[in-house]
Amino acid sequence: MSSQIQSKLSFLPLKEIKKSLQAIDSDTIIFITDSNLWDLYRDKINLELIETDKKVIRWIAPAGELCKTFGEYEKCIEYIIGQGVHRNAHLVAMGGGALSDFAGLIAATLLRGINWSIISTSLLAMVDASIGGKVAINSKFGKNLIGNFHLPQNVWIDSQMLSTLPKVEVTSGLGEIVKYAFLSKEVYSFIENKVDLGLVIKECASFKQLVVEEDLLESKKRKILNFGHTFGHAFERIYDLSHGVAVAWGIYYMFKLFDEDQLLETFAKVTKLLKVNEQLQSPPWEHKGLDVDLALDYVGKDKKVSDNKSIDLVLIDTIGVPRITKMAIDDLKCKMINLT
Amino acid sequence: MSSQIQSKLSFLPLKEIKKSLQAIDSDTIIFITDSNLWDLYRDKINLELIETDKKVIRWIAPAGELCKTFGEYEKCIEYIIGQGVHRNAHLVAMGGGALSDFAGLIAATLLRGINWSIISTSLLAMVDASIGGKVAINSKFGKNLIGNFHLPQNVWIDSQMLSTLPKVEVTSGLGEIVKYAFLSKEVYSFIENKVDLGLVIKECASFKQLVVEEDLLESKKRKILNFGHTFGHAFERIYDLSHGVAVAWGIYYMFKLFDEDQLLETFAKVTKLLKVNEQLQSPPWEHKGLDVDLALDYVGKDKKVSDNKSIDLVLIDTIGVPRITKMAIDDLKCKMINLT
Repeated sequence: MSSQIQSKLSFLPLKEIKKSLQAIDSDTIIFITDSNLWDLYRDKINLELIETDKKVIRWIAPAGELCKTFGEYEKCIEYIIGQGVHRNAHLVAMGGGALSDFAGLIAATLLRGINWSIISTSLLAMVDASIGGKVAINSKFGKNLIGNFHLPQNVWIDSQMLSTLPKVEVTSGLGEIVKYAFLSKEVYSFIENKVDLGLVIKECASFKQLVVEEDLLESKKRKILNFGHTFGHAFERIYDLSHGVAVAWGIYYMFKLFDEDQLLETFAKVTKLLKVNEQLQSPPWEHKGLDVDLALDYVGKDKKVSDNKSIDLVLIDTIGVPRITKMAIDDLKCKMINLT
Repeated sequence: MSSQIQSKLSFLPLKEIKKSLQAIDSDTIIFITDSNLWDLYRDKINLELIETDKKVIRWIAPAGELCKTFGEYEKCIEYIIGQGVHRNAHLVAMGGGALSDFAGLIAATLLRGINWSIISTSLLAMVDASIGGKVAINSKFGKNLIGNFHLPQNVWIDSQMLSTLPKVEVTSGLGEIVKYAFLSKEVYSFIENKVDLGLVIKECASFKQLVVEEDLLESKKRKILNFGHTFGHAFERIYDLSHGVAVAWGIYYMFKLFDEDQLLETFAKVTKLLKVNEQLQSPPWEHKGLDVDLALDYVGKDKKVSDNKSIDLVLIDTIGVPRITKMAIDDLKCKMINLT
C-alpha cells in the first residue's frame, strides 16, 4: 500500500535522470532492470557512481513477461532481503511495463511496502504502464491477477530511450495510444495534427495521471482506462498478440459489437496517422476464427468483472466522452455470437 | 492497498458473527481457515447456509506459521482465481494471527486487492494480529518480511472461542497483553483490578485500533506497538519460542539493557497477575546463552531498522508513556555485550 498521493512525472534526458537517482533521499537503492536493458544502458546508468555514497542492491530480471511469475518474484525478493535492507530503502525500476509491474510488486510487498521510482523505457510504459501504481505478476489463469496498487514516487521518461526499442514494442505502444485518441480530445487532436511523438507521449501520460489522481483504486472513473482491454486481454492470450495490438483489436471489436460505424472510421483514420494501419490490417479472428466461449472465459477471469453475472464495459459516445455500462454476460454472449 | 479508513471491531457471539457473514454485501465469499479450526468449527459455521444465496470458495490452510510460505500463498491464490472470482468478492479469514496474516496477503493482492474480514480465534489475534491491517508471509530470513497493509472491513471477536485454544497459545496471547500493560494505563489498571479477560481483550484491541487509526503506515506513532518486538522477533527465532512469550522476553531484555529496575518489578507484577509468571520464570539466554552477533543479525533484518547503521527502539518512560529513540547499532551491541 502506497502512502503517496501522486507520482511526480518528469520528462528528462537520461543524464538528468541519473542525477535525480543520486539525489534520492535514502542510503540504500535497490536497482531492478531486465537483461536487455542492462546490456544497453549499464554504462550510461553507471551505478558505480551511486555506490560511492549509497548501498546499491542490483537485480537483473529476465526480459519481458518472463519475470512476472511467482518463481521470479520469490527469487528476487529473497535476494534483496538477504542483502540486508530497511524500510527507507528506495527501489528503482528501469524498464518497460512488465519490468515495472514486477518490480513494483516487490516494492509494494518488501517489508510491507517501500518507496520506489520508475525509469520508463518502452512506449507502452511511458504512456500507460508506468503511471498509476498498478503493479502485478501473472496467474496461470490470466495476466496481472496478483498485484497491488503502489504509486511510484517518480516516473522518469526520456523518449530518446525509444531509439533502442524493438519495432514490435513500438507498435504495441502505438496500439495503446489508439486508446487515448478515443478517450482524450487533446490526444486525438495532437495525432490529427501530426505533432511530435514525444509530445503525444507527454499528453497521454498526463491524461492518465489526471484520471488516476481522481480515482486511484479504480472504483469509478479510472475504469475508463480499461477501454479496449475487456477483449484486448482475451485476444492477447488467444492470438498471442502484443499488448497494445491486442488492445487496438479490443477497441475495434467493441465498435463492431455495438455497430459503431463512425467510430470504426475514426479507428481507421487514427491507426493510419499513427502508422500502425499496416500492422492492423485484418482482425486475427478473420483467419483464425473466434471461440466465443473461450474468449468469454478469459473475460470472466479478468478483473473488470463486477459480479458473477455481469461485466463493466467501457463504450465511447464520441471522442473524449467514454461511458461505463454494466452488461449481463449472457447478453454479451448473444452479441458476440451474432457477430461471428 | 486498502481503501478502508478503519476496520469495524465487533465483540459478538459466534452465532451473531454468522449472521453478519450472511449479510456481507457480495455474491461471492472466499472463506479461508486452517485445518484445526475447520475440524472444530465447521458445523457451527455451517457454510452451506451461506451457499444458499452466495458462491462460497473455501480454502483450508495448514495450521500455524506453516501457511505463511510462498508455496502456500501461490497454491491458495491460484486455486481461488481458478474457481472464478471478481473484485467485489469478499474474503473471510477465520483464524489466529498466522492465518489472518496469510489470508490478508491473499486479500491484499488478489486482483490487486479485495475486501476482507476476520473472525479472530486466538488470544494473540484478538488483542493484536487481527487489528491494524498488517498482513504478511515469512521470508527465509525472517518473519513477516513480505507483506502489505490491508485493513479488514470487520474484525469479529467472540472470546468464547478461546475455550478451544491450546494452552501454549493462551500463554502466547498473555505475553502480548504484557506489552499493552506497559503501553496503556487503562489496560494496566484492568489487569491490576483483575477484571474479566474478555474486558481486557476489548481494551487491548480498542487501544491498538486507536493507535492504528492515527498512523496506519507506521510512519510514527504506530511504532510504539513494536515495543518488545525488536528482540522479541530475534528470540522467537533463536530459542523457538511462541510469539507472545518471545515478546515478553523482548520487553524484559530491553528493561535489563537500560537498567530499568522499577519497570522490571512491574514486569514481575504484571506477569504474575496474568498468571504467566510460571512460563516466564527464567530468561532463555540464562541456560542457552545469547549469541549477540546472531541476535543483532536478526534485529538488522527486521523491519524496524531505519537505515544501515541505526534502529528505532521503543522504550517506556512510565506506564502509558512510550518513547521512540534512534540508536546506533554499534552502541546497542556494546550494551548487549556488557549485559552478557
